[in-house]
Amino acid sequence: MSKDKTPRRPRAETPKGFRDYFGPEVTERKAMLDAIAAVYHRHGFEALETSAVETVEALGKFLPDVDRPNEGVFAWQEDEKDWLALRYDLTAPLARVAAQYRNDLPSPYRRYAMGPVWRNEKPGPGRFRQFYQCDADTVGAPSVAADAEICAMLADALEAVGIDRGDYVVRVNNRKVLNGVMEVAGVLDPSDPEKFAHERGIVLRAIDKMDRLGVEGVRALLGAGRKDESGDFTKGAGLSDAQADVVMGFMAARRDTGAATLAALRDLVGASVTGCEGVSELDTIAALLDAQGYGPDRIILDPGVVRGLGYYTGPVFEAELTFEILDEKGNKRQFGSVAGGGRYDDLVKRFTGQSVPATGVSIGVDRLLAALHAKGRVGKPAPGPVVITVMDRDRMADYFAMAADLRTAGIRAEVYLGNPKQFGNQLKYADKRQSPIAVIQGSDEAARGVVVLKDLILGAQIAANATLEEWKDRPAQLEIARTDLVAAVRRMLG
Amino acid sequence: MSKDKTPRRPRAETPKGFRDYFGPEVTERKAMLDAIAAVYHRHGFEALETSAVETVEALGKFLPDVDRPNEGVFAWQEDEKDWLALRYDLTAPLARVAAQYRNDLPSPYRRYAMGPVWRNEKPGPGRFRQFYQCDADTVGAPSVAADAEICAMLADALEAVGIDRGDYVVRVNNRKVLNGVMEVAGVLDPSDPEKFAHERGIVLRAIDKMDRLGVEGVRALLGAGRKDESGDFTKGAGLSDAQADVVMGFMAARRDTGAATLAALRDLVGASVTGCEGVSELDTIAALLDAQGYGPDRIILDPGVVRGLGYYTGPVFEAELTFEILDEKGNKRQFGSVAGGGRYDDLVKRFTGQSVPATGVSIGVDRLLAALHAKGRVGKPAPGPVVITVMDRDRMADYFAMAADLRTAGIRAEVYLGNPKQFGNQLKYADKRQSPIAVIQGSDEAARGVVVLKDLILGAQIAANATLEEWKDRPAQLEIARTDLVAAVRRMLG
Repeated sequence: MSKDKTPRRPRAETPKGFRDYFGPEVTERKAMLDAIAAVYHRHGFEALETSAVETVEALGKFLPDVDRPNEGVFAWQEDEKDWLALRYDLTAPLARVAAQYRNDLPSPYRRYAMGPVWRNEKPGPGRFRQFYQCDADTVGAPSVAADAEICAMLADALEAVGIDRGDYVVRVNNRKVLNGVMEVAGVLDPSDPEKFAHERGIVLRAIDKMDRLGVEGVRALLGAGRKDESGDFTKGAGLSDAQADVVMGFMAARRDTGAATLAALRDLVGASVTGCEGVSELDTIAALLDAQGYGPDRIILDPGVVRGLGYYTGPVFEAELTFEILDEKGNKRQFGSVAGGGRYDDLVKRFTGQSVPATGVSIGVDRLLAALHAKGRVGKPAPGPVVITVMDRDRMADYFAMAADLRTAGIRAEVYLGNPKQFGNQLKYADKRQSPIAVIQGSDEAARGVVVLKDLILGAQIAANATLEEWKDRPAQLEIARTDLVAAVRRMLG
Repeated sequence: MSKDKTPRRPRAETPKGFRDYFGPEVTERKAMLDAIAAVYHRHGFEALETSAVETVEALGKFLPDVDRPNEGVFAWQEDEKDWLALRYDLTAPLARVAAQYRNDLPSPYRRYAMGPVWRNEKPGPGRFRQFYQCDADTVGAPSVAADAEICAMLADALEAVGIDRGDYVVRVNNRKVLNGVMEVAGVLDPSDPEKFAHERGIVLRAIDKMDRLGVEGVRALLGAGRKDESGDFTKGAGLSDAQADVVMGFMAARRDTGAATLAALRDLVGASVTGCEGVSELDTIAALLDAQGYGPDRIILDPGVVRGLGYYTGPVFEAELTFEILDEKGNKRQFGSVAGGGRYDDLVKRFTGQSVPATGVSIGVDRLLAALHAKGRVGKPAPGPVVITVMDRDRMADYFAMAADLRTAGIRAEVYLGNPKQFGNQLKYADKRQSPIAVIQGSDEAARGVVVLKDLILGAQIAANATLEEWKDRPAQLEIARTDLVAAVRRMLG
């Protein structure tokens, strides 16, 4: 046959920037999300699952990170009519739902949502174009009591998945305080809010980069601009030294206690009405959290948190893990942020024209899972199934009956279903499956009504460590009566 | 302001054919899938979650239902390069994974997968363009023992979610038997398999429609063709009466016992090598199931099952719910099929050129959930949270502390976060939330260290049924000490 006749075979590959999740990668994430959902549920939040596909019109141009303008959505046009797209977060669909069902939903509407979102951005190492988010939001509650609740719930959620108290802190700030500081610095005019909007955007993003750029880098971005290591120049906000001093003073306004921080902020915002309102909101939040026992070991006021998103209008918060890990270069560094959110009062307004107060948090599912791995909370090799090996092809029914007996007793079990010819392959398979026990019954054993159990975990330990004497003393296999199969397997599993 | 200046507001709507799932709709489905996953896991199957997006090339043109050629995928082109698409089922991505990771995966590879799939087809009532599938497949196991295992596991899964034994039956057949029958009928020539392929396709789809069209309709499609109620004519396979008799005989070959059915099939396939092989495979499957105690009350041989998909090559199976429900017109009918699958040996070959034996099942998640609703297994109104009402805006901290106390005790609770001015609105809210208890504490109660519990469930019952005397005797509210809050709420919840 001529080679030309063979049609080209499709490549067996995920598209660039997408990946598959196997076994424990799926179940560990699921267990984590289940634990978080239980906390949300206990707080009165209801599940919501919107479709993955939205109209581009409904999604709007609210892509969260304004620093990456190339970031987009996966979109396609339907029959020369509507443009449809995959959701890029869980907040935009919530805004659509809140508008669409505004007459049916309870108000306030507390909902949680978890699922994949998609970003049409350049994939990079560890950066995927489909990833999970896990959000909780309250729509229709104007009081900052709703923000306080979200912060407390976030702390509970982190502890529920296995982050110990002391290993995380939820940091709370308020955009209104920042706006008050901007007024004092002369880059916000309450009578003309559009003026200096561009500069304020630069200030906001500069502050948000404190972790990465440090004080000097941020200071440069507040002023003329900053040249990075590669020589690229980023234009700054153009603030004078005096103006920049005010902003930098804000970021450094965190004191030892919440009360002292509030006092420092009150000084900074001076006569700004918005600023004073912001400080007073933070005061309320702190009092509410205190009353429920969420002290500074869990939640603190920290003016250094601003969050990059443009749409926040009031309190903002961020959960940070405070323990150290080794980064790719082997340097110790703090694990960093795993969740963030804040108050956004205008997302529903796009649809209805009416401002609807809303606040919420989004947990970075993959980062939190990585943190649990770092803490040893997940990732322990899960035991595989007991594998019933096949010695006689004609007695598959017997082997299936053994597996059924084990399963009925709640023990994970399977019959080897590959080609049974080479017994070595069956043990290799059991090994790959991380099987704790192989069950063996040839015709001789069958005639005598017995089976052999091979303890694969002990066997591996012995093979790795034991002297010949020990090996003889502790045989890793055991002959038992077929009728004792379930009991003996249970004993061996421990 | 001129109206022209107002930008047109986006419509708050899901795209056509998509929908949102609220509260219990999400959690009931989740509970059902969790129960199924536990069964799959106990059988040694591993979770797999592939990305929602695949290259069109990898997906291939394997859309399951050939009767709807307009059915397509949601696809878009990436930067004038690859075409990407949303997966339309979970089998095509599995084939890609089996090829991509063939050197790393255990062989056989047992995996389960659950998640949404997307079909770009015309939406209709109750027919959505995004829906869930829940699959289990074994790749790399040539033996029909793998098919038997899938059938047994399917029965276990149905019972695990709450379908009682007797309310379902898994029906098993074999395409090879059908092919043997086709040989006998003269529409399959083993020495030239392509010949009559078109006719056989029509026969296959005709048989699959027995439920809908009845014996006469199917018979017409085997012959010249069939005119439906609207007058549309569907061309038939063009079989002679004698040929059609053979095929109809096959469909009616089910007897009272598996052994009798096998004997009838053996007669029908005569000397066809493929047909005999098929009967013998069914014999093996029946024996394996028997040995594990899966009798005809759960799994039966039924030649009437063929499954519409072209890609099946051996055993095929279908789970049917046998209890009656009322259809939209109020007529009693059997609930029908909720799951199906079979052996397909060529899907991985597309990528690697090597034939890889595979078999699996897909559960229709939405239909099975509807069945559980019909059986009263899900859908009972779940209790909402205890609602702490707000009498004094200044004492939010006290109300939050109450909610925190209840939650610590594992009781779902929330503070009312809307505008607290109208107390009636708070009770209406509690009602909408299906709250069992409202907690009330005004300044007077606070001063005396008490709270009032309002039993909303009892209150609703009394309001609906009670005479005035009963109302007086059983007050639906109760004053208790604040310190007794948790204990009293727990008592009231029962």
